[in-house]
Amino acid sequence: MNIAIIGANGQIGKILTQKLVNTGEHQVTAVIRKPEQATAFEQMGAKTAIGNLEGTVDELAQVIQGADAVVFAAGSGGSTGDDKTLLIDLDGAVKSMEAAEQFGIKRFVLISAMFAYNRSKWSDSIKPYYVAKHYADRMLEASTLDYTIIRPGGLLNDEGTGQIEIGEQLSEGGSIPREDVAEVIVYVLDQQHTYRKGYDVISGKQSIAEAVQSLSN
Amino acid sequence: MNIAIIGANGQIGKILTQKLVNTGEHQVTAVIRKPEQATAFEQMGAKTAIGNLEGTVDELAQVIQGADAVVFAAGSGGSTGDDKTLLIDLDGAVKSMEAAEQFGIKRFVLISAMFAYNRSKWSDSIKPYYVAKHYADRMLEASTLDYTIIRPGGLLNDEGTGQIEIGEQLSEGGSIPREDVAEVIVYVLDQQHTYRKGYDVISGKQSIAEAVQSLSN
Repeated sequence: MNIAIIGANGQIGKILTQKLVNTGEHQVTAVIRKPEQATAFEQMGAKTAIGNLEGTVDELAQVIQGADAVVFAAGSGGSTGDDKTLLIDLDGAVKSMEAAEQFGIKRFVLISAMFAYNRSKWSDSIKPYYVAKHYADRMLEASTLDYTIIRPGGLLNDEGTGQIEIGEQLSEGGSIPREDVAEVIVYVLDQQHTYRKGYDVISGKQSIAEAVQSLSN
Repeated sequence: MNIAIIGANGQIGKILTQKLVNTGEHQVTAVIRKPEQATAFEQMGAKTAIGNLEGTVDELAQVIQGADAVVFAAGSGGSTGDDKTLLIDLDGAVKSMEAAEQFGIKRFVLISAMFAYNRSKWSDSIKPYYVAKHYADRMLEASTLDYTIIRPGGLLNDEGTGQIEIGEQLSEGGSIPREDVAEVIVYVLDQQHTYRKGYDVISGKQSIAEAVQSLSN
């Protein structure tokens, strides 16, 4: 597959780019904001393209044209204000969906946040972030795309364990290394039983392959 | 009609409450955040109910139960941060829609902002506000409600002129007194040809009745 990663320079985006290249099965385009970010991705064996989530849908569509799948791994991050939460995590995500639709790219994987569908579980301190994630998810669900929404629990920089718990609505929260989130995305990309579904995912006791396969039952 | 006005204590909300009471045709419930805001509305001849847009959908549904129509006139205003833009202008609006759906209230009028559907016309300085309005509108369009979205141009405190220009997508921006926006809402509430439509509205050369009727052609 030809895969465009929007937000490739983010923490999960970088790990994901490397993993997808390493499979030897995919051509990967790292969509990045600044030219100086390119070298690192070229060294991984990925192509790069400059794209700005605050630009137009048409511009974004040009950037991802030709891809078979788009992964939205961008996030405004904790150091910016809620203006960027609105502009990047919500509008940037939806503009990416619209850009994918524009050239008939059907497969779209969105990284969201655990419990984004359940307002009663949003912690007060990052409630605006959850609102943005909630509506990005709902807009994707209302689209015609073959989406998968991955909603990880608390993100860790620990090494991946390869062991997860995944389900459409998990009952208990948890955490997960970013590396495992990236691995889940690599795994679900071509799994048709994950199309038009969203999943909470945290560290657990099943291998990623086994856990994702069990979702098809 | 029995009409619940969410955000009655806002600038348009106050004018709207008085106008609806004055018609003599409607029972009006002013949904307000603080008990001390009640007296002014009781003096107008409206009922009051305490409702918090940061509460749950179930709580909001209890507050508006029994209404035939809901007007969402709330706004976080210019003096709060973009966290409130997300929590009130977007999530508060959508929670109000979900609350209306919960008790089968079909008629829903939302006050939005001119050109909220057109990203290329959003001024940089209040872009986050437009993002919130844009997605509140899109969520309403995706709902099953008999909605009308009113998207006024720049809001003025001038006395109403009763003369407007209205259309699904006007080509040029403009301004409009808040009193005229309130009058447009009074007028469209029972006009079925405005159901499931959104309109830009600014000051113009037609009477409100004439302008709104011309939309049915």
